[in-house]
Amino acid sequence: MRISPALLQRSKQLIDKYALYVPETGFFPKGFEVGCIASGVKKNGNLDLGVILNTNKPRPSTAAAVFTTNKFKAAPVLTSKKVLEASLGKGINAIVVNSGCANSVTGDLGMQDAQIMTDLVNEKIGEKNSTLVMSTGVIGQRLQMDKISNGINKIFNERKFGSDFNSWLSVAKSICTTDTFPKLVTSKFKLPSGAEYTLTGMAKGAGMICPNMATLLGFVVTDLPIENKALQKMLTFATTRSFNCISVDGDMSTNDTICMLANGAVDTKEVNESSEDFEQVKLQVTEFAQRLAQLVVRDGEGSTKFVTVNVKNALHFEDAKTIAESISNSMLVKTALYGQDANWGRILCAIGYAKLNDLKSLDIDKINVSFIATDNSEPRELKLVSNGVPQLKIDEARASEILALNDLEVSVDLGTGNEEAQFWTCDLSHEYVTINGDYRS
Amino acid sequence: MRISPALLQRSKQLIDKYALYVPETGFFPKGFEVGCIASGVKKNGNLDLGVILNTNKPRPSTAAAVFTTNKFKAAPVLTSKKVLEASLGKGINAIVVNSGCANSVTGDLGMQDAQIMTDLVNEKIGEKNSTLVMSTGVIGQRLQMDKISNGINKIFNERKFGSDFNSWLSVAKSICTTDTFPKLVTSKFKLPSGAEYTLTGMAKGAGMICPNMATLLGFVVTDLPIENKALQKMLTFATTRSFNCISVDGDMSTNDTICMLANGAVDTKEVNESSEDFEQVKLQVTEFAQRLAQLVVRDGEGSTKFVTVNVKNALHFEDAKTIAESISNSMLVKTALYGQDANWGRILCAIGYAKLNDLKSLDIDKINVSFIATDNSEPRELKLVSNGVPQLKIDEARASEILALNDLEVSVDLGTGNEEAQFWTCDLSHEYVTINGDYRS
Repeated sequence: MRISPALLQRSKQLIDKYALYVPETGFFPKGFEVGCIASGVKKNGNLDLGVILNTNKPRPSTAAAVFTTNKFKAAPVLTSKKVLEASLGKGINAIVVNSGCANSVTGDLGMQDAQIMTDLVNEKIGEKNSTLVMSTGVIGQRLQMDKISNGINKIFNERKFGSDFNSWLSVAKSICTTDTFPKLVTSKFKLPSGAEYTLTGMAKGAGMICPNMATLLGFVVTDLPIENKALQKMLTFATTRSFNCISVDGDMSTNDTICMLANGAVDTKEVNESSEDFEQVKLQVTEFAQRLAQLVVRDGEGSTKFVTVNVKNALHFEDAKTIAESISNSMLVKTALYGQDANWGRILCAIGYAKLNDLKSLDIDKINVSFIATDNSEPRELKLVSNGVPQLKIDEARASEILALNDLEVSVDLGTGNEEAQFWTCDLSHEYVTINGDYRS
Repeated sequence: MRISPALLQRSKQLIDKYALYVPETGFFPKGFEVGCIASGVKKNGNLDLGVILNTNKPRPSTAAAVFTTNKFKAAPVLTSKKVLEASLGKGINAIVVNSGCANSVTGDLGMQDAQIMTDLVNEKIGEKNSTLVMSTGVIGQRLQMDKISNGINKIFNERKFGSDFNSWLSVAKSICTTDTFPKLVTSKFKLPSGAEYTLTGMAKGAGMICPNMATLLGFVVTDLPIENKALQKMLTFATTRSFNCISVDGDMSTNDTICMLANGAVDTKEVNESSEDFEQVKLQVTEFAQRLAQLVVRDGEGSTKFVTVNVKNALHFEDAKTIAESISNSMLVKTALYGQDANWGRILCAIGYAKLNDLKSLDIDKINVSFIATDNSEPRELKLVSNGVPQLKIDEARASEILALNDLEVSVDLGTGNEEAQFWTCDLSHEYVTINGDYRS
């Protein structure tokens, strides 16, 4: 059997991505166990149902979440919102997640199905209102509750739980839909106060691909004790600077959810907003969430480039972010990146039509735009626009070199303040159109 | 010489578009003359410099314009703004426009160049502050003022003016950059008051194509006398519902300008906001502007579909427009259209993340989404979502038929009010990526 060059190349890309981005070991927080199963919802028999359990019962856990702002919220999103609100984010001891079906636009019956999932897990762990639920997959179809229920039962009854690397990696796989690799990130931290804690995170998402697939899920679990309000503050701060700063195609789905669970298995004082460790942990969680979010961009459909858009020296953070987003979402910038074209005109244009809160954030006579090589080659920075004036002569050879890299940075210096924002995006390629132009069914 | 099938097909498409959308005769307003020339700025020697003159001097003319909101405004935009403000839109008797160079991001020298263009024409017509200027083409390069000046001189000195169909069509060609056909629309109207008047319009734009090209220009000229403030009101109203309702790739350039000139050559009372004819003329100008704007979408790069997105029964016009725009700009909706996929999930998703002024504009339990066939085939409407519930069984065969049409409509009924907005968009194809991913130079 002759394998086409295109298929060979695609396989190679997939192997490379897996080798590059999927770890082989990790750090896992004390007092958590995870389990998963192939419930049969995914036709190909892949893992598609997972449960994350807090087993550190003596100390009450806390949870926080950031949900999609899409007006059409999937049943699992609405259900989890209710659970968090009713519990004030305290005493959440389980997360159940399924892939293959988003349980979105499924009306009252879909709400009942999401409720059944949480009820089942609550029953298994002997708690009330203690479980969050997430789904990802096809929109507009009901969950196959027989398979989901059987699957949940099996995970518990057959004790499919573990806390080792393979258990966590399997759960990361069980949440995947069209991802080409599972997204698992782990880190250990030591705080000024002396406490050591772990963050483990999983995410899924690769753009809204293969018609009707929902998009972005992220979980971060930790053994640090974090007070509920402080946890929500941290997660919101982190999400604003990570998962809300990625662009594959600019569409926010009906199911997007980022959540965090802290079980206090580390024997140290609970971190709240007045703690000396609060700021440090907030920044560590933010940087951690950025690593997870960037993996989603790296898996962007058909992408050949991973691009960091860095907007600095801005008067306001929000405006810096708006400008970074405008550049990151521009179809013209993204196709130029695909064509490896150092096209500053399109970047400037995207900056110019961004809807700012404060017009003073942008001074057209102070703006600087550069491309930055991220591979340690020199010269690292290629100036395109200086103080609003385009460079008369751009080193086209160097431009080509930088634009040929898989990883590069677009740097915008607004010169109006001290705030900074980053966005991560990928290019727009022929393959993206192919993947998304596919016929349904 | 063997011609590739792709080239043959492309040629055929171009021929078809020309035959379909370029008129062979037209109606032209009294008291205007137009002339153009190939100045040499366009390397291929095509027409690239045009002048529109009001020759109906006894009666003062009026002018209005709507300019890009991009923070980076090209020199011609800033110059024309100043002219209009200084004149209060009265006594504007000429428009000079060049293509091939946008005179954008050209600093003070670019401003001087734009001023020279208006000064030259003012001198030729013996007026002060009477000329508007527009440019379209490459961003970041200075105008070749020798060629521009020579060209303007030649147009006047050699009397290259006319008021017949060919003269107008030539000017429509002289403003083109990457358009595949010139855009000229003409109409005669009779008002309740008995007055008969003409609208003639030209536009250019086909997306920001071939790196660094600026985008959208539109001109409407009429022989009806319209008071300056009333004219600006009409044009703003019309532009909000026409040129600001088209999407090729969602990027607003540094040069976008729509302007209107009214010279009162028709012997009737000047129309102002209290006139009985005001509303009628406003609507006629709006519908006319929509025809022009739609031609720009039809010329969308690589497009295979012309899609009308109609959002009706909305609580607020602005929110209806925001929703229509969200659907029209969504990469996922545009690729689904290209793939001829009746993908309601992506449409709903785009509706759901639109940033509304009033959340009450959208009630997820009242929303209806349909595809509409525009070729008189039956059944005309294919319901996808009814009162927030997706159709259990969609007639896939009929869906395929509608999605195979070159022209179709996406209809969204919000069920929250009486307002309506329309947007016009095209699909996102492989060819779009090819055109825009091309290397610069």
